[in-house]
Amino acid sequence: MTSVLRLPSIVIEPIVRSALLEDLGKGGDLTSDAVIPHDHMATLALRARQPGIVAGLDLAAYAFLLVESTIEMQMQRVDGSEVAAGETVANVSGPARALLTAERTALNFLCHLSGIATATAAIVDAVSGHKAKIVSTRKTTPGLRALERYAVRAGGGANHRFGLDDAMLIKDNHIAITGDIRTAIERARAAAGHMVKIEVEVDTLEQLDIALEAGIDAVLLDNMSVEQLTQAVAMVGGRAITEASGRITAQTAPAIAATGVDLISVGWITHSAPILDIGLDIAVDTSMNRLLN
Amino acid sequence: MTSVLRLPSIVIEPIVRSALLEDLGKGGDLTSDAVIPHDHMATLALRARQPGIVAGLDLAAYAFLLVESTIEMQMQRVDGSEVAAGETVANVSGPARALLTAERTALNFLCHLSGIATATAAIVDAVSGHKAKIVSTRKTTPGLRALERYAVRAGGGANHRFGLDDAMLIKDNHIAITGDIRTAIERARAAAGHMVKIEVEVDTLEQLDIALEAGIDAVLLDNMSVEQLTQAVAMVGGRAITEASGRITAQTAPAIAATGVDLISVGWITHSAPILDIGLDIAVDTSMNRLLN
Amino acid sequence: MTSVLRLPSIVIEPIVRSALLEDLGKGGDLTSDAVIPHDHMATLALRARQPGIVAGLDLAAYAFLLVESTIEMQMQRVDGSEVAAGETVANVSGPARALLTAERTALNFLCHLSGIATATAAIVDAVSGHKAKIVSTRKTTPGLRALERYAVRAGGGANHRFGLDDAMLIKDNHIAITGDIRTAIERARAAAGHMVKIEVEVDTLEQLDIALEAGIDAVLLDNMSVEQLTQAVAMVGGRAITEASGRITAQTAPAIAATGVDLISVGWITHSAPILDIGLDIAVDTSMNRLLN
Amino acid sequence: MTSVLRLPSIVIEPIVRSALLEDLGKGGDLTSDAVIPHDHMATLALRARQPGIVAGLDLAAYAFLLVESTIEMQMQRVDGSEVAAGETVANVSGPARALLTAERTALNFLCHLSGIATATAAIVDAVSGHKAKIVSTRKTTPGLRALERYAVRAGGGANHRFGLDDAMLIKDNHIAITGDIRTAIERARAAAGHMVKIEVEVDTLEQLDIALEAGIDAVLLDNMSVEQLTQAVAMVGGRAITEASGRITAQTAPAIAATGVDLISVGWITHSAPILDIGLDIAVDTSMNRLLN
Amino acid sequence: MTSVLRLPSIVIEPIVRSALLEDLGKGGDLTSDAVIPHDHMATLALRARQPGIVAGLDLAAYAFLLVESTIEMQMQRVDGSEVAAGETVANVSGPARALLTAERTALNFLCHLSGIATATAAIVDAVSGHKAKIVSTRKTTPGLRALERYAVRAGGGANHRFGLDDAMLIKDNHIAITGDIRTAIERARAAAGHMVKIEVEVDTLEQLDIALEAGIDAVLLDNMSVEQLTQAVAMVGGRAITEASGRITAQTAPAIAATGVDLISVGWITHSAPILDIGLDIAVDTSMNRLLN
Amino acid sequence: MTSVLRLPSIVIEPIVRSALLEDLGKGGDLTSDAVIPHDHMATLALRARQPGIVAGLDLAAYAFLLVESTIEMQMQRVDGSEVAAGETVANVSGPARALLTAERTALNFLCHLSGIATATAAIVDAVSGHKAKIVSTRKTTPGLRALERYAVRAGGGANHRFGLDDAMLIKDNHIAITGDIRTAIERARAAAGHMVKIEVEVDTLEQLDIALEAGIDAVLLDNMSVEQLTQAVAMVGGRAITEASGRITAQTAPAIAATGVDLISVGWITHSAPILDIGLDIAVDTSMNRLLN
Repeated sequence: MTSVLRLPSIVIEPIVRSALLEDLGKGGDLTSDAVIPHDHMATLALRARQPGIVAGLDLAAYAFLLVESTIEMQMQRVDGSEVAAGETVANVSGPARALLTAERTALNFLCHLSGIATATAAIVDAVSGHKAKIVSTRKTTPGLRALERYAVRAGGGANHRFGLDDAMLIKDNHIAITGDIRTAIERARAAAGHMVKIEVEVDTLEQLDIALEAGIDAVLLDNMSVEQLTQAVAMVGGRAITEASGRITAQTAPAIAATGVDLISVGWITHSAPILDIGLDIAVDTSMNRLLN
Repeated sequence: MTSVLRLPSIVIEPIVRSALLEDLGKGGDLTSDAVIPHDHMATLALRARQPGIVAGLDLAAYAFLLVESTIEMQMQRVDGSEVAAGETVANVSGPARALLTAERTALNFLCHLSGIATATAAIVDAVSGHKAKIVSTRKTTPGLRALERYAVRAGGGANHRFGLDDAMLIKDNHIAITGDIRTAIERARAAAGHMVKIEVEVDTLEQLDIALEAGIDAVLLDNMSVEQLTQAVAMVGGRAITEASGRITAQTAPAIAATGVDLISVGWITHSAPILDIGLDIAVDTSMNRLLN
Repeated sequence: MTSVLRLPSIVIEPIVRSALLEDLGKGGDLTSDAVIPHDHMATLALRARQPGIVAGLDLAAYAFLLVESTIEMQMQRVDGSEVAAGETVANVSGPARALLTAERTALNFLCHLSGIATATAAIVDAVSGHKAKIVSTRKTTPGLRALERYAVRAGGGANHRFGLDDAMLIKDNHIAITGDIRTAIERARAAAGHMVKIEVEVDTLEQLDIALEAGIDAVLLDNMSVEQLTQAVAMVGGRAITEASGRITAQTAPAIAATGVDLISVGWITHSAPILDIGLDIAVDTSMNRLLN
Repeated sequence: MTSVLRLPSIVIEPIVRSALLEDLGKGGDLTSDAVIPHDHMATLALRARQPGIVAGLDLAAYAFLLVESTIEMQMQRVDGSEVAAGETVANVSGPARALLTAERTALNFLCHLSGIATATAAIVDAVSGHKAKIVSTRKTTPGLRALERYAVRAGGGANHRFGLDDAMLIKDNHIAITGDIRTAIERARAAAGHMVKIEVEVDTLEQLDIALEAGIDAVLLDNMSVEQLTQAVAMVGGRAITEASGRITAQTAPAIAATGVDLISVGWITHSAPILDIGLDIAVDTSMNRLLN
Repeated sequence: MTSVLRLPSIVIEPIVRSALLEDLGKGGDLTSDAVIPHDHMATLALRARQPGIVAGLDLAAYAFLLVESTIEMQMQRVDGSEVAAGETVANVSGPARALLTAERTALNFLCHLSGIATATAAIVDAVSGHKAKIVSTRKTTPGLRALERYAVRAGGGANHRFGLDDAMLIKDNHIAITGDIRTAIERARAAAGHMVKIEVEVDTLEQLDIALEAGIDAVLLDNMSVEQLTQAVAMVGGRAITEASGRITAQTAPAIAATGVDLISVGWITHSAPILDIGLDIAVDTSMNRLLN
Repeated sequence: MTSVLRLPSIVIEPIVRSALLEDLGKGGDLTSDAVIPHDHMATLALRARQPGIVAGLDLAAYAFLLVESTIEMQMQRVDGSEVAAGETVANVSGPARALLTAERTALNFLCHLSGIATATAAIVDAVSGHKAKIVSTRKTTPGLRALERYAVRAGGGANHRFGLDDAMLIKDNHIAITGDIRTAIERARAAAGHMVKIEVEVDTLEQLDIALEAGIDAVLLDNMSVEQLTQAVAMVGGRAITEASGRITAQTAPAIAATGVDLISVGWITHSAPILDIGLDIAVDTSMNRLLN
């Protein structure tokens, strides 16, 4: 638990608000409003049903607060920390109606982002001892990119460019349409701002050679074998950042990291990671005096 | 390929618009704008890299159209149809810059929703021959519930209530806070509109008995064994809709369906399904004359 | 004054915000800003000028709070309670400028919703002693449906489906286009989720017979005479919910309720109810020590 | 049918969009999607069930178009024209599903605004022959002020200021808080822009005298008797615009108009007018060749 | 420093929120998050680097508060007051990260609006001693009109109509299209509400004569020489408000004011005023005990 | 007139829509609606009143189209091209009412952005012959950053980072709070993604030396004299990008460019550039057959 991860509240608040409205509709929580007396207070525990890495506690907190501003959420974990099965990540106290109304939205964020953090951590662990960083891609769930990138960081990973407008990545289709890789790089360089880095996807060592001559900042070595990657890293010789990509998993990652690449980009940690199962239980954790802040 | 699945454009258009802005930022696609001549036209193929069920073609179409209104998308599949690895689901033609700018957003929708449809179809197939329908839950990705429910239908599944305001589902926490299941049901019935159905989660056959006496519309049989489910279905005897739930997979579903339950609700098809991998290729499918409208 | 009626603040806050901006424009309240010293404090009374049922106090409160967060509103009535002419429903205290700036918006909500609650109560009273519930329809003022449905509940009525997506109602036009009522019901049943009820509009007893055979959940008996309704209720014999509709007023409602129908749906309580006249007076009610909450 | 009334499409389009989403929810029209074949085309008639003045045809047209852009609406009346019971105001042609999906939203706008136009026309007719104009107030339905003011114009009325920021109206509460009417007018004049007119509410002829001395632009003569109004108009002698207000109806308006006031402001035409009942029928009007473009 | 200038918070808060999101993007402040420890507190001074008139302090305050609600801003000036080079206008205290994150947005508002106030004050000063008021036009920066009009008032100026819908201004193009000025005025008068003033642009004394005969409220004397203005003012003789316009600067304004016109409208104070340079310094002003408020 | 500059329509359309609503209010253009017959067609010319560089034609086009979709705009210039005083940049044809309604919004965008392009071109010209590029800063008008950066490019300049989230710039306050420049750079590097460049502001050659040792990507040489800049550029020796800043004008820029710096960043081109005066005239340019596109 080193640094404190945070997303700006001005960014996450409208996302949580929309998600709540999606669940509440226009009529609100018919069941809780009917069944739970309006003055019934409760304390519930957000408790992991699987081991993993927690991410998204602020999102969950906003879900509860936006339904009822008097709810208090006491964190037992911070984003990026491990949790074992059965352990409590936070307790929430307040009007029982509001707690149950916000429950699903809070959990949908928390489970989804913790799932991404957990998946990221697995592959980060797999390459530990190597210099390669695990980075996420733009293959994210529509509307949640900022949150999912954050969850990747919570899991120990790093981020590639946010979107199309903050860095240049010349991909295979760009090259195919342009006709040759050299022209594509030259056009990119002519148009790029001085704070914009340029990366190019290369499929062969010939392309890599041209890209290096053109003074590229980074190369995306797509779907190369371990042998090719080893050769490519040697060819680059530190002149550019090297990034391996192409359906890399926790199983295949160690061998790829061993080639000496700087980065391994992994799409599935954002587009296909299963959730980390976290539920809301009535029984309160007796370890509540171990509260973090 | 029976009926035509559609979501209202007034619902999906703002979701696609937001997703595009997330990727385009304020500056647009730096790379394509720099590298691709503005008057270069192209036809690209959306092609499956895995077999599965397609869902989300309208979303993809909107992504292209919102970037450039002259792009034409010719569908080779409709939502809900199967696609084999290597087959083309649609071709898109227009200015190459715009095609590449919209590519990732289009694919993020299409791969995510096709992943859900494919996962749904797998479990729907597993229970074929039984009357049990596969239904999705409220465990959806924040912001995408309408789309994900649609993808479940494309995969042959059905939907539970949309949100907290269109049906009542009395869950374990409601009962625990109320004190007893009978009181909870009575309160719900007193408050419910005449078009609102009431379902209650029961963990034991004793609770089931009380619920049936109270004339409940549907019972959620949570985490019951196959034996318990068989007993429960017999006890209900057609007086209420029976729904089984609790981490049910394509492996465990057939035995559960065989108990005679009406519904099997499955969270993971919306919260943990991996994407169906679909890419955008320059080479055009030669079967383009087989176009569906 | 039994249960506590509330709409989620996350639902009502943006509606009040929009209404305020409609009145404030971009320049704010030219008159109050010019005429009232900025540090002048006042207490004003929201006072009924007619007898009726109050609804919308939270909306009024939000109007004042969104203009000036230090304003305090002390409720003398809760939504759903009666008020006599001349009685105070709430007092508001704070900067006089802000009170006058928010006045019209607060009153527009309060008078409109109280008008609906009062109209609803009149017809609810007219059928007291009968089992028939008074229900509202989708004939609501654009943008205010959630609020108007709430006001109906405050007046003692109940609600029909919220909109097109939370229940099925097969109307005359659906049947006419489909060709026959049986086919329409069968198509609806095949498509409906298990939590979705189906109602069908019937104009004749023949249609009613078909609908009952098809196992419909509810029947809308449109524009039937008291005699027809009596026959229809007998024919249904408890197998479906019966709903009478068609320009029913407080005058005609008792006879209709006497037929034994379960529901009487009334469009005019939401689309044509006159406001309940409530004004903002400077003189403070001396009964302020009877404050609730 | 004189001039062509129009509201900017940029103003009305988002209002109709919101209203549609309120009715469609996230799932769309469950009934029509299930019951009506997707390729069934139809022509339906918007037909008045009562005589009155039509207003809101553009709003209805947007409701249909936003659901399905291929729908065509052929107008048989323009806003501001009379319609008799049974007459068709417009025909709509297109996919039957979409027509039924948009029906309620289209009618909710059209009936509400036509109700306001009809109520306005009744009181405008009552004062015909007098110079007094009928003007609407800020007592409008939240969110619909621009539309309701437009409907008043369609009914032959005129508008007071739009909101708090486009003119000054010093009301009784402003004067009470300020202490005296002269000071209030002086403060207003000192702050007003040169294009901003100032009106003051006066309850007595003494106040009127002070206001005229102060060179006021307009006076609001609130709740005065016909005798008082006659005296007031004489006192003003053309030096300011005179406006009568205070629960004026079509019955009381002629006598008030006869006093020679310039304006009669009427709250109930916007806050309490019943709808004009207009429905959507399948049978098409045979007079369709009399179409007004 | 007489009255207290304020814009409604409900108007300015969303504008500041949008501006912050424009700078923060989706990822927030990469630099400050990386470089500044999360618990480092600081007090910084907003300090003028040039003499001028301050405007926009509330906007700056919102920028800081929306990033971090615990930041405190202690004002040393109020909007409309003078500041010398080197003087502090406000101090802000709180987490250093958040202070630096909000800095640019806060300053962009403050410098822009103070620039407008300063430019306005210069020309207001130039005409002091004359009755002419300096008024702003609709030539404002898109999205910021309410703020810029406010800044003009902070600089001692006044405002013309807000937009197209709160007053009538018949311009040269209107007259050219209508054919003659008299017809244009008559049409305007027939359509205008009683609280709407009508102004007409006149280029010649002949046009002025017609406008006065038609009883116009105000005349815009566009691009007239000092001689023509003098004649025009004499011709008007107090029967209408006279407004001079046409590239008037602080240099030319005194002679124009001396003609006796009521208003001088100046576009450049909103569309071309340079900013007032204000920066954020770490060293705290020692005069902090002179705090206002 | 080389490459074609464009901003994504999905980015600019909502900005123009907001600006139009700001001017139209809720009631629309009172004057044009009253004075201009609804069926009067016209062709007007957007004509420069000063020489300069045009930028923002698409924005102007959107303003006209969003008011009335049948308006046609024929471009005589493209963004980035020069225009002389009196020359026409575009003609617009359509209903005269709509043309006049959209006029001010169209011109406010076009004049503001053309002003920025013209200011940029002046300083770009001043440094021609040197390698230094002119770059804009984050000192932009709130809400218009994407447009203003675009206008800078139209004027021949380049852009710095868009906002806080797409590159790192360690400024003097960051260093002061961190304590030393080396630590700040190290922290930045540890946190930066591989596509994120890091720049640091240095005030002295000692700081420059540390930054170069730390392998910084770019250095911001703030407020240095020409002598210092010359020394700094020599010290850097191509190891990092060099950027000069600090109130640089077209007068001082040539000497600074001559020092060999890579970039000159200029705040005033976005925050203080006066507009380029462009008006809308009824007389049509006879050179209309020279139309582009």
